[in-house]
Amino acid sequence: MNTPGSITVADLGERRIIADIRARLPPPPPFLQVGIGDDTAVATPERGALEVLTTDALVEGVHFDWRFSSAYDVGWKALAVNVSDVAAMGARPRLALLSLALPGALGADVLHALIDGFFDLAKATGVTLAGGNVTRSPGPLMVDVTLTGAVRPRRILTRSGARPGDELYVTGFPGAALAGLSALRAQADGAAPEASTELADCIARYVRPEPRLRIGMIAGRNRAASACMDLSDGLADGVRQIADASGVGAIVDADAVPVPESARQWFRTCGLDPATAALSGGDDYELLFAIPRRARGRFATVRRQARGVPVTRIGSVTEDRAVLMRRADHLEPLPSGFVHF
Amino acid sequence: MNTPGSITVADLGERRIIADIRARLPPPPPFLQVGIGDDTAVATPERGALEVLTTDALVEGVHFDWRFSSAYDVGWKALAVNVSDVAAMGARPRLALLSLALPGALGADVLHALIDGFFDLAKATGVTLAGGNVTRSPGPLMVDVTLTGAVRPRRILTRSGARPGDELYVTGFPGAALAGLSALRAQADGAAPEASTELADCIARYVRPEPRLRIGMIAGRNRAASACMDLSDGLADGVRQIADASGVGAIVDADAVPVPESARQWFRTCGLDPATAALSGGDDYELLFAIPRRARGRFATVRRQARGVPVTRIGSVTEDRAVLMRRADHLEPLPSGFVHF
Repeated sequence: MNTPGSITVADLGERRIIADIRARLPPPPPFLQVGIGDDTAVATPERGALEVLTTDALVEGVHFDWRFSSAYDVGWKALAVNVSDVAAMGARPRLALLSLALPGALGADVLHALIDGFFDLAKATGVTLAGGNVTRSPGPLMVDVTLTGAVRPRRILTRSGARPGDELYVTGFPGAALAGLSALRAQADGAAPEASTELADCIARYVRPEPRLRIGMIAGRNRAASACMDLSDGLADGVRQIADASGVGAIVDADAVPVPESARQWFRTCGLDPATAALSGGDDYELLFAIPRRARGRFATVRRQARGVPVTRIGSVTEDRAVLMRRADHLEPLPSGFVHF
Repeated sequence: MNTPGSITVADLGERRIIADIRARLPPPPPFLQVGIGDDTAVATPERGALEVLTTDALVEGVHFDWRFSSAYDVGWKALAVNVSDVAAMGARPRLALLSLALPGALGADVLHALIDGFFDLAKATGVTLAGGNVTRSPGPLMVDVTLTGAVRPRRILTRSGARPGDELYVTGFPGAALAGLSALRAQADGAAPEASTELADCIARYVRPEPRLRIGMIAGRNRAASACMDLSDGLADGVRQIADASGVGAIVDADAVPVPESARQWFRTCGLDPATAALSGGDDYELLFAIPRRARGRFATVRRQARGVPVTRIGSVTEDRAVLMRRADHLEPLPSGFVHF
C-alpha cells in the first residue's frame, strides 16, 4: 500500500497526522464543548435522552484485505460497522473517537484516503469526530472506532424483547457481503475471473456497507419492534442472539430469505445451498427486527417512511426455544453463524 | 507469553472470552441500563453534568514489552492511561469500553491476568465496563480502551485557561517512568544488573502507574486551576501544550523539577542531565496544573485534601510566548518532549 520513495505516515509523524485530521473537521456542533486537542473531549448530553456507546475495530488481514478494499473503503467501513450498531438500538449517532494503529511504512496518501472515507460517512450520518488516538503499529493497520448516540428511553430497540408470535423481518440482502467477498477471493486466485462483474452489487455491500440508520431510527421512533439487532455476524447468528436474549425460539423460512439472484447463482457455482450460505455469511450490516402482531400497522408505516430499503419477512418467533429453518416440508436446525476465532 | 501445549485464546474462542469477561463484572450501577451483550451499551447521562470521552491504546512492542510488564500490568495500564486523561479534566470516570485485538497464540492465562489488572483498577477508580470488542490480531496484542466520565460544567479543567502570572505545579515525579524503563532495558541487556533494585519505585511507576484521579477531581471541584493536563508525553510536552493552547509562554526552573534521588543518579550514570531527562521522559501520568494567584488558597486546600500526593511548584506562566527553562543564572529553551513516531 505504498510506493517506494513516497511519503509515509512515519515521515508525517503523529502531530502532522493529527493536524491533517483536524483540518478535515467541519465546524463542531454546539453540544461538543471541547473537541480534539485536550485530554478528553467534552460534550453536553442530549436532554431527556439515554446515551448509547459502542466500539468496533477493523484489523488488516482479519477484517479487510488491501487487494479488495481501498483505503477509502476501510475508513468508511470502520465507521459504518459502528453506525450499524447504533442504528440497531433505534438511536441517532452523535460522537466518534478514532483510534489508529499505523504501520510506519503506510503511505501518507493511504492514510488520507482512509480519513476521507471516514469523514464522508460521518457527514452522511451526522457523526462528529470528537477525539481519538494515533499510535504506531509494528504489525497490521488497525482502525478502532468508538461511537456514541442518543435515544429516547421508550425508543430503545434491545435484543431481548421478542415474544412468541412476533414476526421476523430483515432489511436488504443477507449473504450479499459473503457472496461479494468470496467472488473477490475467487477472482484474486484466478478461479473465477468474471465473478466480480456479475456480483458488483454484492461486492459493494461488502467493501462499503450502507448502515441501515434511517430505518433503525424510524423503527425506534414508532416503537414498531419488540427486538432488533444488526447482522454483523450474519443472519443465523442474529436470529440466535435475539432468541437467546429473549428466551424464545424461532423458525426461519429458507425460501423467504432474500438472496439476490446473482448471489444465489454464485453460491450454487460454489456448491453451496443459497439459503444456508446467506444465513451463515457475516459482514451484512442489515437489521433484523421482531415485530409483534399489535405493531404490524406501525411497522408498515416504518417501511413506508424508510422507502427504498428492502424489508422481507423471513420467519417468526416461537415459544419452543429451538431455532429452526423450514424447508418446503420439514424443519431442520438453523445453520450456525459466522465465528471470529 | 505462552507455554507450548497450554490453552490459547484461539482455543477459547470469541464467545468464551466474552463470557469470561462478563463473569468478572460486578453488579451494574443503576445508570447502566444495558451492558455487554446487546448492539450497544445504554446509559443514563448524569443529570446536570457534561460528559468527557477519551480513548488510548497500548500496543505490544510499542507501549509495552513482555520482558518488563506482566499481563496484569498491561491490563491495569491500559485503563490507567485513560483514567489519567479523565482526571486531567477534573472529571469522574464512569464507563469503559475494552477493545482487544488478540494474537491467536496468546495464552488464555495471559488474557485472564490482563483482565484481572483491568478490573482491579476499574474497581479502584469507580469504572464500569459497559462493552467492547474482541478480535483476532495477526500481529501484536493491542488493548484499546475508551473511557467516559462526568464533570460539572464549571469544574472542567481544560488546557487553554493558563494566564501570565499563573504558577505551574506538577504531581509526583516526572521522569520516574523513564528512569524505570531505561533501568529495565539496561538490566535486560546485562549492562546494569543492579539498576532495577535501586530504581524499584521508578519501575513501579512505569509498569503500573497510579493515575492522579483524586487530586484531579478535587482541583476541578475547588476550581483551583486555570489549566491542567496529564503528562503522558512528558513534562516538557505538557508545559508546551498548555502554553500553546492558552496562547502564553512558560519558564520552568530546572532545579525545581522533582527528580527522585535514585533517578537522578541513574540519569547521571547514563550521562544525562537529570532535569533534562526528567522533562523529556514520557509515560508519567502525572498532572500539570496552572494556578492563578487568586486561586492559591484554594489550591492549598486541594493539596491538603489530596494528602499523600506530592505536589511541586516548577515554574510560572509568562506573557512572552517562549517556553524556557531556567538554570541557575540563565534561560534556555525547554527540552523537547517525547515523540511517538
